[in-house]
Amino acid sequence: MNLKTEVERQMKILSSGTVEIIPENELREKISHSLLKGEPLRVKVGIDPTSPHVHIGHMVIYGKLRQFQDLGHKAVLVIGDYTARIGDPTGRNRERAPLSEEDVLRNSRTYRDQIFKIVDESKTEVHFQSEGFDSLTLQDILNTASAFSTAHMLTHETFRKRLEKGDRLSLHELFYPVLQAWDSLLIKSDVELGGMDQKFNILCGRDLQKNRGMTPQAALFMPLLEGTDGRKMSKSFGNHIPVDADPQDMFGKVMSIKDDLILPWFSLAAQRSSQELSLLKVRLEKENPRDVKMELASEIVSLYHGTEKAERCRLGFISQFSRRELPEEIPLFFIDPKGMKITGILKESGLLPSISEARRLIIQGGLKIDGDPVRDPDFILRPVIDTFIIIKAGKRKYLKVKGR
Amino acid sequence: MNLKTEVERQMKILSSGTVEIIPENELREKISHSLLKGEPLRVKVGIDPTSPHVHIGHMVIYGKLRQFQDLGHKAVLVIGDYTARIGDPTGRNRERAPLSEEDVLRNSRTYRDQIFKIVDESKTEVHFQSEGFDSLTLQDILNTASAFSTAHMLTHETFRKRLEKGDRLSLHELFYPVLQAWDSLLIKSDVELGGMDQKFNILCGRDLQKNRGMTPQAALFMPLLEGTDGRKMSKSFGNHIPVDADPQDMFGKVMSIKDDLILPWFSLAAQRSSQELSLLKVRLEKENPRDVKMELASEIVSLYHGTEKAERCRLGFISQFSRRELPEEIPLFFIDPKGMKITGILKESGLLPSISEARRLIIQGGLKIDGDPVRDPDFILRPVIDTFIIIKAGKRKYLKVKGR
Repeated sequence: MNLKTEVERQMKILSSGTVEIIPENELREKISHSLLKGEPLRVKVGIDPTSPHVHIGHMVIYGKLRQFQDLGHKAVLVIGDYTARIGDPTGRNRERAPLSEEDVLRNSRTYRDQIFKIVDESKTEVHFQSEGFDSLTLQDILNTASAFSTAHMLTHETFRKRLEKGDRLSLHELFYPVLQAWDSLLIKSDVELGGMDQKFNILCGRDLQKNRGMTPQAALFMPLLEGTDGRKMSKSFGNHIPVDADPQDMFGKVMSIKDDLILPWFSLAAQRSSQELSLLKVRLEKENPRDVKMELASEIVSLYHGTEKAERCRLGFISQFSRRELPEEIPLFFIDPKGMKITGILKESGLLPSISEARRLIIQGGLKIDGDPVRDPDFILRPVIDTFIIIKAGKRKYLKVKGR
Repeated sequence: MNLKTEVERQMKILSSGTVEIIPENELREKISHSLLKGEPLRVKVGIDPTSPHVHIGHMVIYGKLRQFQDLGHKAVLVIGDYTARIGDPTGRNRERAPLSEEDVLRNSRTYRDQIFKIVDESKTEVHFQSEGFDSLTLQDILNTASAFSTAHMLTHETFRKRLEKGDRLSLHELFYPVLQAWDSLLIKSDVELGGMDQKFNILCGRDLQKNRGMTPQAALFMPLLEGTDGRKMSKSFGNHIPVDADPQDMFGKVMSIKDDLILPWFSLAAQRSSQELSLLKVRLEKENPRDVKMELASEIVSLYHGTEKAERCRLGFISQFSRRELPEEIPLFFIDPKGMKITGILKESGLLPSISEARRLIIQGGLKIDGDPVRDPDFILRPVIDTFIIIKAGKRKYLKVKGR
């Protein structure tokens, strides 16, 4: 293996989809050094288990972490059981209500279960902040705080904005970035991954490591995955896709994204390389974007639920999609749960004037049941529990059939 | 004893010389409650042992504390061995270099020795912050910090100024007021005394006690004692009087203060009541201020060195003062350590042309030795070790005499 080629190969994979790497040359050196020594890089991701709800936007980071693992590096997850009790003030206009220890534990279990759908658990080290933090003394804490200037802390956009607006910013919140930085010191991270909203905190980690004479971690920032409507993905906007959403729901929600999100989602939620993205771009210009989007949806569902379920969703979606082209108001007709002759249904519902006209239409191939042609005039239709069956007679006549 | 009368008596004594009591009615209630229950108030003073140098300006607070003790209350000294390691940022343009634990211990020993010249040690409880702080966990610290808003912390004048000027303000310095507040919580203080420069910190103590459901301490603020030149008393201005200054030096320095400082010093350095101050004010208008100032100097020296030494200083000062009216250049004449006839000294030194003129002058009463007339022409002058004797012959002739 040529060292330089391998370093560049890793850099290419790792930098794809990133917004910023600080500093890129240090990451390159770290990879080179790791290859020479045969020692994997320690790649940190901090988890803020403030909520049991994980959505695929959160997983962008873990997709990148998985790429590091696939290149032979070590994932180090730090579960922020301390910081969760502070609540990340980033992007918050108000102080968060502190979480109980039980909440934090429960959330971090859910979180790990979700993460390990993407991250290789066998190549992962998991730490709780409390492992290192429980034994800290006031003196340790003051010493560490002395490495940071208040002025710098107040450049944190959220802090600055809250102070300017007169919103409460409690003193302990200034410690959020300090504690996150401390993690990097304790676990000796070479790289830390995070969203752009974590830039301030992750760079604090670099500062603290430098301050303590350690080689500072490189920082790798991923963009935010936009929600299905193009705004920031958030549970409160209802534009998110929970990682534990059932396959149909997940598939359907991916299918609801705007066309201009297809490529960013392929990059961030499906970790496609820049080469693959170029090909997809060309296809999007030629094909119906819906078909490309269906590939995206299948791929995302595969990640969390496996390929078999993804394929079932795809077929289900196609059939559901066909239904979507039906007229808005279709008369509803209830039949005996045991079933009813199709000709009887057509006449009784008033869709056709007589049994004989119904028979003629069926024989001529003018009847479709749930999109499939039915040519047997003696066919007995059995209703399906909890849903309805769509009958199409001729070009424009529709009927919904349901069991009584 | 009439409760109301006693409460008012205490209030009168305690409020004399203060700048501000926050809030006065709470202090009144506390005293009343203390008298009813027979439980002394716990009166806190925080000591910042950042330097071994204690000057009488520092002792203003302890004079007030002694008044509380004399009224039956309990003094609680909290030695800020933690905060000393941060360094009180108040009034500092720059962060202080942290002190070592040894420095802090040594300084606090010196400090206590000086304080107990004024404060009654037998009615005093002494705590080190570290007693309570060493066992704190990060969680305790974050919880406590959450009681304070960053915006409020930044209203601290020194913090605000340093941030505005772009001077470094380390994050740990914001904890100085928090830790001082915490002391009040731990020792359950009813009252805290301090200088006006401690107002922010002491009121933080009130806030924290309130936040934790405790009856908040009353705050009693003393003014700063101005230095001998009228500026803030400070070692770096050289206008301070160290508590361990020797008696003569202390006496002389008090005598060097400007006349308009006499009354403030009587109030703050000698704890004179407002009634006594009124009398002194009248005397200052009628008498030579120097004589009133000598009483002040005697009283201050008595406090730190006892009345006997104070009286010796007063006499020494008077004689030294008389000397101060001598011409600047006086010839110096050395004599045999065993002594020499006064007429011989006058002739040999060239002060007078002959022995006979010397005898005539002496008999006529024209000779003074150290201010006292000497009429015996056969007087033998014996030199004094380490100093000189002043001879005055007639109206304008002077001689300094010293042993060989």
